[in-house]
Amino acid sequence: MKIPKAIQNLIDSFERLPGVGPKSAQRLTFYLLHVPQSELDRFANSLESLKKDTMLCSVCHMIGESDPCSICSDLERDESVLCVVEQPLDVLALEKSKRFKGKYHVLHGKIDPLNNIGPDEIFINQLFNRVNKSFSKEEPIKEIIIATNPTMEGEATAMYISKSIKNNTGVKNDKIRVTRIGRGLPIGADLEYADEITLQRAIEGRMEY
Amino acid sequence: MKIPKAIQNLIDSFERLPGVGPKSAQRLTFYLLHVPQSELDRFANSLESLKKDTMLCSVCHMIGESDPCSICSDLERDESVLCVVEQPLDVLALEKSKRFKGKYHVLHGKIDPLNNIGPDEIFINQLFNRVNKSFSKEEPIKEIIIATNPTMEGEATAMYISKSIKNNTGVKNDKIRVTRIGRGLPIGADLEYADEITLQRAIEGRMEY
Repeated sequence: MKIPKAIQNLIDSFERLPGVGPKSAQRLTFYLLHVPQSELDRFANSLESLKKDTMLCSVCHMIGESDPCSICSDLERDESVLCVVEQPLDVLALEKSKRFKGKYHVLHGKIDPLNNIGPDEIFINQLFNRVNKSFSKEEPIKEIIIATNPTMEGEATAMYISKSIKNNTGVKNDKIRVTRIGRGLPIGADLEYADEITLQRAIEGRMEY
Repeated sequence: MKIPKAIQNLIDSFERLPGVGPKSAQRLTFYLLHVPQSELDRFANSLESLKKDTMLCSVCHMIGESDPCSICSDLERDESVLCVVEQPLDVLALEKSKRFKGKYHVLHGKIDPLNNIGPDEIFINQLFNRVNKSFSKEEPIKEIIIATNPTMEGEATAMYISKSIKNNTGVKNDKIRVTRIGRGLPIGADLEYADEITLQRAIEGRMEY
């Protein structure tokens, strides 16, 4: 039996999503056959307008509804601390934690030589420009927290930024702090099962009571 | 920061799908932000036309492009053997195995008292009617293979069908065989790790060389 075209098309669309295999795509599609048409239409509309109704903030490169985005235009946030992340989703995660009240810079990727992604392919130069520009402002950037992922590529990206920021901006050694987000045991973890590198970082990142 | 409405809408739609949690819904949505608009439009179109371009076959209740469906109207298939399954996806799985050349009957569910689903909520009476009708045809149904899932509910549904078919149709004992799809060890399995009930069924379902 040939699968009806209307069904196969949707299966194909689901299969193109990351982490969705052929079986899941089938299951999702057949599930949607039982859903009211109005809900399918709503789903379809959300897909169509996803990119049309959003834009990239020209300051921090976060995805939002306006340019500058709601964080960049928020006067209550501390302009002097910048948190550098890989992806827009990282901003949402940090915002949910409610601990950071500065501004963000989204790189949209990480330095990943194996996949041909160098510093010029992500928004690193834009970060340097932003730091430079801030010196002519009332409140210049005083700290950059590099919050790329603690993976091989994320660490390399963090290292690159911290090393090249002084050559690429007019920053003097003492004028700006470059910090790395804390690495160690996640809350709820079991020391016994933690890997060696996490434990190394946890020891290095120990804090005074 | 508030998530842009266009993004939140799509996250919500993804979250309504079975097996997709809040994190996956977010990840899928942000992934789609990097996809060309044309692909989003195609995905949206598939969703909109999913139900419009498909229909339920009035004979076997399979989902297809025509009524009767391509299997029911295929003259080369054996009308005398009927395979009863729970879901349309089961038909596709059996078709892929290429071993069954009869016709199907899709119940669209299983008897599941805990969820208030009795025999009348699924297409069981339609199965009995179909069996009855077949007796006036050239090629009456000779065998019903019940291929509901080997779960508690699937077994109960199979049991119900096999017990009530004689009361609900004009079938005489010897006129129709009601069989259950084979249960036992799946190919590639390890006897050591098989559960007790599977092993019981495997012993019961042993076959002569």
